[in-house]
Formats: sequence, C-alpha cells, structure tokens
Amino acid sequence: MSEEVSGDVRREWRVVTVAGVGLIGGSFALALRQAGFQGRIIGVSSPATIRAALDRGAIDEALPLAEAAAQSDVIYLAQPIERILETLSVVDATVRPGTLITDAGSTKHAIVERAGQTIRRGRFVGGHPMAGKEARGVQAADANLFQSRRYVLTGSDATLEHWVTKIGARLVRLEAAEHDRLVALVSHLPQVLSTALASLIADSPEAARVAGPAAADMTRLALSPYEIWRDIFSTNAGEIDRVIGDAIARLHSLRENLLSEPDMQAMFARASRAASQLRQS
Amino acid sequence: MSEEVSGDVRREWRVVTVAGVGLIGGSFALALRQAGFQGRIIGVSSPATIRAALDRGAIDEALPLAEAAAQSDVIYLAQPIERILETLSVVDATVRPGTLITDAGSTKHAIVERAGQTIRRGRFVGGHPMAGKEARGVQAADANLFQSRRYVLTGSDATLEHWVTKIGARLVRLEAAEHDRLVALVSHLPQVLSTALASLIADSPEAARVAGPAAADMTRLALSPYEIWRDIFSTNAGEIDRVIGDAIARLHSLRENLLSEPDMQAMFARASRAASQLRQS
Repeated sequence: MSEEVSGDVRREWRVVTVAGVGLIGGSFALALRQAGFQGRIIGVSSPATIRAALDRGAIDEALPLAEAAAQSDVIYLAQPIERILETLSVVDATVRPGTLITDAGSTKHAIVERAGQTIRRGRFVGGHPMAGKEARGVQAADANLFQSRRYVLTGSDATLEHWVTKIGARLVRLEAAEHDRLVALVSHLPQVLSTALASLIADSPEAARVAGPAAADMTRLALSPYEIWRDIFSTNAGEIDRVIGDAIARLHSLRENLLSEPDMQAMFARASRAASQLRQS
Repeated sequence: MSEEVSGDVRREWRVVTVAGVGLIGGSFALALRQAGFQGRIIGVSSPATIRAALDRGAIDEALPLAEAAAQSDVIYLAQPIERILETLSVVDATVRPGTLITDAGSTKHAIVERAGQTIRRGRFVGGHPMAGKEARGVQAADANLFQSRRYVLTGSDATLEHWVTKIGARLVRLEAAEHDRLVALVSHLPQVLSTALASLIADSPEAARVAGPAAADMTRLALSPYEIWRDIFSTNAGEIDRVIGDAIARLHSLRENLLSEPDMQAMFARASRAASQLRQS
C-alpha cells in the first residue's frame, strides 16, 4: 500500500547522492543535469574517482556516505553488485525517514532481498538501466547514455519514474525475480556463449586464419572483464545455471537434427523471427 | 607434380566464365575489371539474374554453360554448394584441355573430392573467399568486396593467385579438410550458437523487454536464411557435429565452474585474449 501511495505523490528531489561515480553513476548525474535537475549532486567514491567526477562536472561535491546520506532525498547506488549489498547493510541508519534508495545493479533479486532486510527508515526501489558501453569510468560518462534504453524498476516511486523518463529512458516495471530470469536469457547467456566460443577458438589458434565477421561478432562480449561478471554470476547463479542447461539441450537438438531439412528450416525460421523482433522492440 | 608446374607458369586469362552471378560471382567479375582485367566475362545464370548482371555491368554476355565453358580459360563457380557439385559432374566434358576450374563454395572437402572424381581435361583448384554481406544478389555486388579479406585456395595456380591478390584479397593456402575443420569452428559454430540463442529467446518473447546490445549482437547471424546453410550442414556435417560437441562440453564446464573464481577468471582471460587476437589478425 505504501508503495502505491509513493507511486502517486511526487516528492521533489533537492539533494541526490550518487554512490559509485563510474560510467553509470556519472552518466546518471550528467543526465539529471541535462534534463533540468536544479538540486545538488553529492558523489561518494574513492578519492581518484571523485577528482575525475569533479573535473567532469558530474558532481557538485564529495562526502563520506553517512554525511551525504543524512542530507539527501535520494541515494543512487551505482556500485558493483557486492558493494551495493554492503552499502544496503549500513546506509539505512544514516538516512532521514522516507529517503528513497535505488540502485543500478545488473541483477535484482539478491539486492531487493537484502534491501527488504535492511531498509526500514528509507524506502527502496530497485533499478537496472539497460545501458552501457565498452569504456568504463566517469571519464566515459555520457548524459545521453540512457536515451531510448530500457530502465527496469522493481517498484514504484513517482519522482524516480519522472526522472527516469526525463533522461530519455523507457520505463519497464518488473519484479526482481522475473527481471533476473529474463536477463539470464538475453544478457547472461549471451556472455557465457561468447566466452565459450572464444575459449574454444583459443584452443585452435590456427583458426584465426579463416575467421571473418561472424567470429568477430560472436566473440565481442568475450572481451568483457571477469570483474563485472563475478558478481552477476554469484547473485544470479540459479537462473544462469538454468539457461546454460537450456542452451545445452537446444544444441543437442540442433546437432541431432543437423541434416533434417524440415526441422532445421523450422528452427532457422523461428530463430530468425525472434532475432528480427529483438531489433524492432 | 602438374600442380606445381601450373603454380609457377602464369597462363593469361582471355575469357572468364562466372557460373552463378550473385553477390560473390558478380563481385568477383566487378573486382576483376577494377583490377585491370581486359578480357571477356561470360555469365551463366538464370534469365532474371543475367538481366540484372548485364544492367550492373558485371558481365559482357550470357551463354549456356557448355558454350561458355568451351571458349573459356577459367570457369568460376559461384553457385550454391549443391549446384557446384552438380556443375562439377558435367562441366569437364565441355572444357578445353587445361582449363582452370575454381569455385567460391563455403565448404571445400566435398567439392574438392567431387572435382577429383570428375575433372580430367580441366584442372581444379578450390577457393573460398571469406567475404560477404547481408544483402544478396548481383544488385549488391561490389568490386571491393574482397578487399583485405582472406581468400582460401586448396591448390596452386599462378594466374588465379595473381588475380586473387590483385582484387585486394589475402591469399591463404589450406588443404580442403583443414579448411573445413577450421571454418566449422569460426564460422559454422557461431551460426549454430546464434540460432540456438535466438530460438531460446523465441520461447520467452517477454525477454525482449529487457534485451540490449548483447542479445542483438549475438542473434545477428540467426537472421541468415536456412537456404545458405542447408548445403554447408550437408557437406560439413562431421566437423560441425564435432564442434557442437566441443561447445556442449565447454558449456558444461562453464556451468560447473560458474562460482569458482579462479577457474572463471582464467576462462575469461583466455577467451578475451583469443577475441582480441581475432581482431588483430
């Protein structure tokens, strides 16, 4: 019930704290400014990141988390997932009653569950902006990073929804478990397939002699650093295990039907339709 | 022995027949012209394709295969693989002794084997230009299609090698069986993985709500029509079966080690190195 009320009443944001001023946190701050946010933005990060974020104009000032939280209307957690979990365990004691706490982590179930155990004075709405780029850090931050990209929220908050829309993102409401189930298929499995393929090519280096654009496309994700993926694997292991199992079963079926024209024709047609639809949606 | 001699002595081409004037055949004809070829180019294709090829300026004239072959120095087979196999079964009777027959098929073992059984008056060297684009047909033909792309030859012929180099391609000599083993890994397996992933997404259409660039990248190949792949599967089934088996084994191993930090760190590092090397080579 309180969620429904908070979804209808817009509370103005005057002070925003961004914890973890990297690519996503920095871009969110720059996007807020570009969208007309007039309040103050406080950064919470390591000294080196804070210097870069101040240089970049992404934040107005820097403070330790407890001091920043005590004066903020919203706390935006854009740290690695494990750091978000740690922050959720300590931040509630430092916030004013009713403060909105939200995050930008790539998995949602573990984070929403932790928030359910720890956030009492504040209110928590989980978030996942479906945006990114290969470069990392606040140096690569971009006020337009969220433009036309989907932005998942696991609950409702009128002001958060207002700003998510103002920065150009497309709001998608999903429960945390459903979010994790779906991203396992469209984000985590693609990574696993790309890493598997690239690791097989590593075993046959002479294959590079005949590699073309297909191999390049399908191994681009394999360039991602493990550091980003460790927390995703640890907080979505069940769903990822399930989709890897589905992929293994599908490969067995493709292998068995490889020379069966009607089966393969149907499989290609169905796959091609889904691939086209992904590009339209 | 005869192959070695033909590899050293350059026989000038005056008349070239291109059988199958689609994207690859049409691009080869345009690339030859752009590279300074002064002779005549005869097209062998369906009436509609011939009209388009003449409009496009890719060929000088059109003839039935037997008539074209009887007056040509080289016959370039750019048809689908099964059509290449059929053409190899009939063309030898129509050529002058010593005529070079070459092809652009995506698998090599079945084609080189068939040529070994059928080509007596002519000489056969298998070819595979590692080039293509999403659009098909002579309308999409491009004189620069082979620029900087690898071009596999399964044997040697000085004039063919001269022109392959002149059109900007990078010559790679490989035995047919080795070619098929390597492309199974870097071309055929990527297609199978992409089709498998897209077909799983087809089973969960709601996943499109959270799909981002990773899903788009990894399902691009799934847009390929089955018509191109049917012949590749039928002529390279053994190697494709083997690499699908390798991929299944690798996915089992990734799944088992998903939460083992040192194992996954090592797998990501190895995969990332191979993916970088693919981009440099």
